[in-house]
Amino acid sequence: MNKPETPRKPCPPALISALRAQFGDRFSTTPAMREHHGKDESAFPIAPPDGVVFPLSTDECVDIVKLCAAHDTNIIPYGVGTSLEGHVLAIHGGICVDMSRMNNVLAVNVDDLDCTVQAGVTRKQLNTHLQHTGLFFPIDPGANATLAGMAATRASGTNAVRYGTMRENVLGLTVILADGRVIKTGGRSRKSAAGYDLTRLFVGSEGTLGLITEVTLRLYPQPEAASAATCTFPDINGAVRTVIQTIQLGVPIARCELLDAVTIKAVNLHSKLGLREAPMLFCEFHGSAASVKEQAETVQAIVKEHGGMDFEWATQQEDRTRLWQARHDAYPACLRLKPGGRAMSTDVCVPISRLAECIAETNKDLQDTTIPIALFGHVGDGNFHLAIVVDPNNPADVAEAERVNHNVVHRALAMGGTCTGEHGIGFGKLDFLDAEHGGAVAVMQAVKQAIDPRNLFNRGKVIRHRTNTAPRTLDGAWSGKVRMAHDFEEKPPPQP
Amino acid sequence: MNKPETPRKPCPPALISALRAQFGDRFSTTPAMREHHGKDESAFPIAPPDGVVFPLSTDECVDIVKLCAAHDTNIIPYGVGTSLEGHVLAIHGGICVDMSRMNNVLAVNVDDLDCTVQAGVTRKQLNTHLQHTGLFFPIDPGANATLAGMAATRASGTNAVRYGTMRENVLGLTVILADGRVIKTGGRSRKSAAGYDLTRLFVGSEGTLGLITEVTLRLYPQPEAASAATCTFPDINGAVRTVIQTIQLGVPIARCELLDAVTIKAVNLHSKLGLREAPMLFCEFHGSAASVKEQAETVQAIVKEHGGMDFEWATQQEDRTRLWQARHDAYPACLRLKPGGRAMSTDVCVPISRLAECIAETNKDLQDTTIPIALFGHVGDGNFHLAIVVDPNNPADVAEAERVNHNVVHRALAMGGTCTGEHGIGFGKLDFLDAEHGGAVAVMQAVKQAIDPRNLFNRGKVIRHRTNTAPRTLDGAWSGKVRMAHDFEEKPPPQP
Repeated sequence: MNKPETPRKPCPPALISALRAQFGDRFSTTPAMREHHGKDESAFPIAPPDGVVFPLSTDECVDIVKLCAAHDTNIIPYGVGTSLEGHVLAIHGGICVDMSRMNNVLAVNVDDLDCTVQAGVTRKQLNTHLQHTGLFFPIDPGANATLAGMAATRASGTNAVRYGTMRENVLGLTVILADGRVIKTGGRSRKSAAGYDLTRLFVGSEGTLGLITEVTLRLYPQPEAASAATCTFPDINGAVRTVIQTIQLGVPIARCELLDAVTIKAVNLHSKLGLREAPMLFCEFHGSAASVKEQAETVQAIVKEHGGMDFEWATQQEDRTRLWQARHDAYPACLRLKPGGRAMSTDVCVPISRLAECIAETNKDLQDTTIPIALFGHVGDGNFHLAIVVDPNNPADVAEAERVNHNVVHRALAMGGTCTGEHGIGFGKLDFLDAEHGGAVAVMQAVKQAIDPRNLFNRGKVIRHRTNTAPRTLDGAWSGKVRMAHDFEEKPPPQP
Repeated sequence: MNKPETPRKPCPPALISALRAQFGDRFSTTPAMREHHGKDESAFPIAPPDGVVFPLSTDECVDIVKLCAAHDTNIIPYGVGTSLEGHVLAIHGGICVDMSRMNNVLAVNVDDLDCTVQAGVTRKQLNTHLQHTGLFFPIDPGANATLAGMAATRASGTNAVRYGTMRENVLGLTVILADGRVIKTGGRSRKSAAGYDLTRLFVGSEGTLGLITEVTLRLYPQPEAASAATCTFPDINGAVRTVIQTIQLGVPIARCELLDAVTIKAVNLHSKLGLREAPMLFCEFHGSAASVKEQAETVQAIVKEHGGMDFEWATQQEDRTRLWQARHDAYPACLRLKPGGRAMSTDVCVPISRLAECIAETNKDLQDTTIPIALFGHVGDGNFHLAIVVDPNNPADVAEAERVNHNVVHRALAMGGTCTGEHGIGFGKLDFLDAEHGGAVAVMQAVKQAIDPRNLFNRGKVIRHRTNTAPRTLDGAWSGKVRMAHDFEEKPPPQP
């Protein structure tokens, strides 16, 4: 296990008093509230913050940051807690800033295809808000995450193959820095060559450089036509080769997802479906009616060439939603594969030419193991996940999960890929970041030091701070980290 | 005029000797060579470097950086000198690193739609290299710039409306830092959530954070079909409204350019064409045959709705090339508008909903002035340029040019736009950067300080270095800066 870099300091009582005085019942230190905010959807053990505060405005956030700075206390930005590498865990203690009450859509500029939202607006809330504008926000990581959380983790998900990730779709941010200064990065023009790209620097910084309070996003016209299709393959290789050829032909496919046979089995159990338990592709096409038809015909021909079968269509919104719900449920569904089990997840991304090889070699690993492991993901981007279901009380299971994770990450790196396509580093993949970026990690550290010199924001995540590097073991990221309590069902958080 | 921040120091003779000893005739201090490298396509007066070196490899670049660091001498990365805001001018003296001999295409990964090139490869060279692969690199700023230069300035140009800018199309970089360390940013996978986005930090940093020696780029399948169209409008408003509606409808147009009547007059003179001297749109459509037809029909209907006429098609590559050459020549063509004149250029970008208003108000400015000013640009992005043709020996002309520039930039900023869509800050727009980004500029300064603490790279560009800020005047960016010598024709540089 990665050790926290510095021994955890107790939270200064004066800070607790000051927050209580200013925020009243919008500040909580109850065990239930702290526990709820001390976990995400990873399997790491709960690390509760010392208190949770619910600001209503950027000004209130400034006050929180200044108070925490005055007491040298870690600040953890919090959306809805759907991250997967321990991003929001208070491994150094500190104050959790729950942004959920800053959930106003501030502006929708239909003519400019953009909008500005407060940090706590979720992607589903935004799309409901946009329903009658003819526009939508495409980035869809599955979970109903907040848009600031998605910006902070550079989220992507199923639609990224067509619409890009948060990197391409955040136009600007309002951010509070460690000394309480409020800056605005980027702007509303579609492009700019004015200075360093601070927007992209904060996107993917996982709350370690500042507190994001507002996000300006690109929107897209709702496609004139959309259709979804599924098909199964006798082996995983045929499915992967279908995807590769589709991408290489430049088909502007909107979604292109692979679920292996193990995942389909789990989805069948979870969603009471009767899908053939074989590798399956879920595809979606957006465009004009003619273009959607053309794309779908092209892909159908490629599917046939690679031995695909059971080609099925869903052109109705309702059918598509059911289909994608099943896909999104793949992660919780995997828990059905082992009663009492917990899922550890990992994700990697490789250049598409290496995807077949990477999945084939990973699949060999999966055949050799005794624990259930589901493979699925956004293969149009070269990105796939493993959900490794373990008995958290069985050290052999956990060790095996670590071995599989280590293997798939190093396999992806050796193929020119990345240790995480979309889940991020959190504190679960710190060592892998070193393995991937080598000397460039020191530049990231220099940037952190420059922008957050006292390491106030989300300590111990993404990079090790220069001033408190502690001994660490390579790999072994999961040892002793399995959490028992979390069942991955969406439920409302406790109210202060 | 912006004053250089510190008095110019003479270049240490020991550095000159050391470079001469190592690089022999690949290091030059001749007046012709220094003068050639002391200018770009802006109207600023020549500011020659103290010497010009032509490295052949990343290792040689490391040696150059270490030598300059040892002698505390400014390093200016140089591509082909086509920047427009004084980016390569040696206003603090120093050594110019001409990357033109590092011009190997290192790898083309057809299956992954990416390639890696040395810094000095130009975009036309790359596309010639790619001709038989079925792929192309779309970003086209007009000039045949080097790809590292385009990365450094976050270039975009005519195709950006469809394919994005360098921001979206650089996957990774090899960069030498101020202490000679070589880092690799990004990677070849299509997306990654691994750590801070250093690639996007270096893209657009205008050579101020390090020396880029290799660039990994996204490539695209050559479109199955392409066609171009032109049409004229009785007034500029009809043309702009056509563009806005096209973008708002989500038509995936590949290029969408506006040239005003003054520009068309200049283009007619320069390219001996007989185009109607009225506002004109140049459009291009890429896709499958069916999709191109569909897009073109949609746009043609919008054109009609807004009073467009003379709708003409060019489906042959040769015709399209001629058309786009005329468009790309708009800038030098403008020099025909005033014998002996010199062109000062500016570029702004606004949210598309404000484009009609921004251009209409700017147009009023242009009606009121006595000097020829051409308005043209990439209006599909909300981006347009002014080429202001002045008698450089007439202070009234220069003052008028400054007034027009000031007005258009502040108008764009007031509309939520940016002071530069694609030309960059250089040293010509330093004050405008402050006006646009306010407190965020201090964060850019902190990043510069962290990565290049001794201000070794391209001093005085993009941001004022914290350690040597000098008094400055607001605006007045062009006073006394008009250069006489440069005629904007492509000619081979002097050889060492």
